[in-house]
Amino acid sequence: MTKGEDTKLVILKAGLQMASALSLEAVTIGSLAKATGMSKSGLFAHFQSKENLQIAILDYAAQVFTDKVLAPALKTDAGLTRIKSLVERWVTWGSSLKGGCIFVSASTEFSERPGKVQQYLRHQQQQWIDSLARLGRAAMRVGDFSADIDAEQFAFELYSLLLGFHYYHLLLRDADTKQRQETALEQLLDRYRMPCS
Amino acid sequence: MTKGEDTKLVILKAGLQMASALSLEAVTIGSLAKATGMSKSGLFAHFQSKENLQIAILDYAAQVFTDKVLAPALKTDAGLTRIKSLVERWVTWGSSLKGGCIFVSASTEFSERPGKVQQYLRHQQQQWIDSLARLGRAAMRVGDFSADIDAEQFAFELYSLLLGFHYYHLLLRDADTKQRQETALEQLLDRYRMPCS
Repeated sequence: MTKGEDTKLVILKAGLQMASALSLEAVTIGSLAKATGMSKSGLFAHFQSKENLQIAILDYAAQVFTDKVLAPALKTDAGLTRIKSLVERWVTWGSSLKGGCIFVSASTEFSERPGKVQQYLRHQQQQWIDSLARLGRAAMRVGDFSADIDAEQFAFELYSLLLGFHYYHLLLRDADTKQRQETALEQLLDRYRMPCS
Repeated sequence: MTKGEDTKLVILKAGLQMASALSLEAVTIGSLAKATGMSKSGLFAHFQSKENLQIAILDYAAQVFTDKVLAPALKTDAGLTRIKSLVERWVTWGSSLKGGCIFVSASTEFSERPGKVQQYLRHQQQQWIDSLARLGRAAMRVGDFSADIDAEQFAFELYSLLLGFHYYHLLLRDADTKQRQETALEQLLDRYRMPCS
């Protein structure tokens, strides 16, 4: 890694922390320069605009997400094992960031702010939902799920459950939340399960 | 209504629209004065501080929510009818505000901003979750739900489903979202239903 790439990574890490704790809109070249003790002109040289900086932070978050959640889950056996592994990793990822999953908070924040950041978020979230549907189809293929399931419906229900966990965890700090999520996941998987699998 | 109360209502309506479309943190005495064409000193006389203004907006939103969602649903028969009526009204309420349900977006926004606004939101969301659990217990009492259900678990699962709808609707503008939510609700209710009810 060159020194420039190294510096960029330090900036992006700090930017992701700031975006998670406050909001993505709170991350500007000025506020991030202040937080990292770097010069505004230095940050400007790396990112050129606030929008580019915000997208670079989301891109960096997507990279961390792939490394910590998606890639390791995809190494487990297709089917129920992979789904459970993904959920477990998603929950840990969401809980590890102060302010929770950046994609959930940024998506809410940018729902009425048209532009490049919103486009990026929509594309990114659609990809995530497609990944969840693929997990459902893989479970069908290996015989863990019934052959007639609606994979898009499964993705919607699984993502709803993750959002419920995220919201309860962040807002209510309810100690029972993890247990509720696990119970709900078992019930969800039961409904899609191949009889006697 | 006095002229002062009338003016206050106009301010709160505009504040709620602004908070939904942008963010609650974007609503300040200055920004709202500009949006409504009123003087900052006039707004200050009504609310005294940004935090008070934000709480007044949430309080106003809670009033609208009670009038449009909770109170009419509570007039329907306890049990499945009431649950379905509440969900239908919640979905309409969330879709009618540009930016969606203010409680969802503000809660995400304030999860890491300790203070009076966060306290208000936690209290308000806990009340909402308690209402959902009460709906489940009422359904048990009238025999629509099995007698051994966990009402808190039901509340978690129902709220997760609403959050999933909210998120898909806002971010993805997916035409199938309403159908997915209805299918998921039917499946959720089926799991809690009294056999042969």
